[in-house]
Amino acid sequence: MPELRKDPILGRWVIISVERGKRPRDFTSITHRKKGGFCPFCPGNEYTTPPEIIAFRPAGAEPNKPGWTLRVMPNKFPALDPAGMLTKSGEGMFDRMSGVGMHEVVVETPDHYLTFATMDQKAVEDTFWACYIRLLEMKKDQRLKYALIFKNEGDEAGASLEHSHSQIIGLPIVPRTVQAEMKGARNHFETKERCIFCDIIYQEMSDGKRVVCENDGYVAIAPFAPRAPFETWILPKAHEAAFGPQQKSFVGLAGIMQRVLRQFDSILESPPYNFIIHTSPFSEEQSEYFHWHIEIMPKLTKIAGFEWGTGFYINPTPPEEAARFMREVR
Amino acid sequence: MPELRKDPILGRWVIISVERGKRPRDFTSITHRKKGGFCPFCPGNEYTTPPEIIAFRPAGAEPNKPGWTLRVMPNKFPALDPAGMLTKSGEGMFDRMSGVGMHEVVVETPDHYLTFATMDQKAVEDTFWACYIRLLEMKKDQRLKYALIFKNEGDEAGASLEHSHSQIIGLPIVPRTVQAEMKGARNHFETKERCIFCDIIYQEMSDGKRVVCENDGYVAIAPFAPRAPFETWILPKAHEAAFGPQQKSFVGLAGIMQRVLRQFDSILESPPYNFIIHTSPFSEEQSEYFHWHIEIMPKLTKIAGFEWGTGFYINPTPPEEAARFMREVR
Repeated sequence: MPELRKDPILGRWVIISVERGKRPRDFTSITHRKKGGFCPFCPGNEYTTPPEIIAFRPAGAEPNKPGWTLRVMPNKFPALDPAGMLTKSGEGMFDRMSGVGMHEVVVETPDHYLTFATMDQKAVEDTFWACYIRLLEMKKDQRLKYALIFKNEGDEAGASLEHSHSQIIGLPIVPRTVQAEMKGARNHFETKERCIFCDIIYQEMSDGKRVVCENDGYVAIAPFAPRAPFETWILPKAHEAAFGPQQKSFVGLAGIMQRVLRQFDSILESPPYNFIIHTSPFSEEQSEYFHWHIEIMPKLTKIAGFEWGTGFYINPTPPEEAARFMREVR
Repeated sequence: MPELRKDPILGRWVIISVERGKRPRDFTSITHRKKGGFCPFCPGNEYTTPPEIIAFRPAGAEPNKPGWTLRVMPNKFPALDPAGMLTKSGEGMFDRMSGVGMHEVVVETPDHYLTFATMDQKAVEDTFWACYIRLLEMKKDQRLKYALIFKNEGDEAGASLEHSHSQIIGLPIVPRTVQAEMKGARNHFETKERCIFCDIIYQEMSDGKRVVCENDGYVAIAPFAPRAPFETWILPKAHEAAFGPQQKSFVGLAGIMQRVLRQFDSILESPPYNFIIHTSPFSEEQSEYFHWHIEIMPKLTKIAGFEWGTGFYINPTPPEEAARFMREVR
């Protein structure tokens, strides 16, 4: 019989429908491969993008020219506009707000064909550094309340350019997903005086069946109520509310991130995916109850009428099985 | 500058990003066409599906044989299981429930190549009748709290079989999307003593710029804060909490539904889409504050990291423009 499972933070139910059970190879038709062609993110084409905000390149080298290892630019087609005032207005019963915000792109490597899984670990560390630096900068902007850091890899996961890149969006409102997570975590804290994520980490690490991998600072788990097959979360083992380095280093985070992505590549044959860094809002950086983490979602199933209508998800792969497949990768 | 708009019922923000503005023809690469091949829903293949629950066929004709105009069967790969007890259990801090529920399929026409837009209006009326009959039946099941009626048209919208069909899922819990709508509508009613949907209908019909089309009983609008380009809602003009016929007839509903879908076909070239009937939970059939409606979402954009991370949507097409394009279809 299928099983309904509730995410303890959001109260979101998912249906684990084993009757529709699929093994990893059933999903591998969704493999994506890079095709090349003209790319605005490749070295030599810097003139086609807005000027860089920060870049990592040898000291003294010229900006907006080749030689960089990582570049951060404003998005050429931003979803939000960095200039202008935050204004609010009504239209009868409806509410609107000017679309003020930052929308930036981190080009993680000059090599068009590398991915976050296959590039040098140093490039992944640098990507986290660049995101962190921009996050700190956006925090200073009084108009903004939140910075969302995410990555779309592969056309099916919504990437419009295939050259490996991440995005940072600074928002004038705290996203509803983040609000809902904060609320769920706060409710738990009010009852138990413990962080719900710390409780999840403790239970998962004691039990082990949904643990994908771990290192000194981080653990990767298949969450109890995953929305999609092979959904994986990476969490710092110690309580930390806001995204940032551990002991001034992103080595541990980059290491576990690449290990998870390489496990995906191995068993799901380079699937498209999204990852999202769930960090606390600017105003709650020191939260006792929120615990930052990364949610990674391989794009293997489609959002259809059921998901739109219910906010629930049907997942054919139990997380215990997904974690086992992941652990078996050598 | 892009604009943030808030859905007045859910409080969900969307970004109307005119800088990314797209005209209908920019979306038409997502057109879908039926390919044929072996189909379990075609006449003659009735033996490949579970036995029918109800069917519309000439009096005296044999069940589960050709001759029908519409069939309702249990889904062969159900997301939920109709047999068994509703049991609840824990796993440490986590909660689970047995996946009890109904999952049924309405095959709307014997003709493989017709769509909900192109079949006879009578077939669409019959589909609504079949859904309504099954909804009333599911209401009698003490284990169930809600019935979700929806349709996935086209592979991109999650249809696994291309022969035109709708689905009905009876659920042991009220979906979180429905709970959120009920809550938003209740809040409005508590302040204003009016149904928020009635208020929206009044404002939209007075203003006109987001009205797509209307007939005696129903109005179709592009909602103020649409998640996706060309999202369209159909609402009964008079207050009705639960999905059902008007004066014992689905003629008006079938008429406006086909008109909207034909407008999509005309300007977006037969896009994949989902529609969902938003009706009140079984326990609140007579709600003063909830107003049933149909939400139709052409599948023209992808859900990516931003949407997963925020619960917000980036929409390149303002609803005023979508409604104008729709109205221009003759």
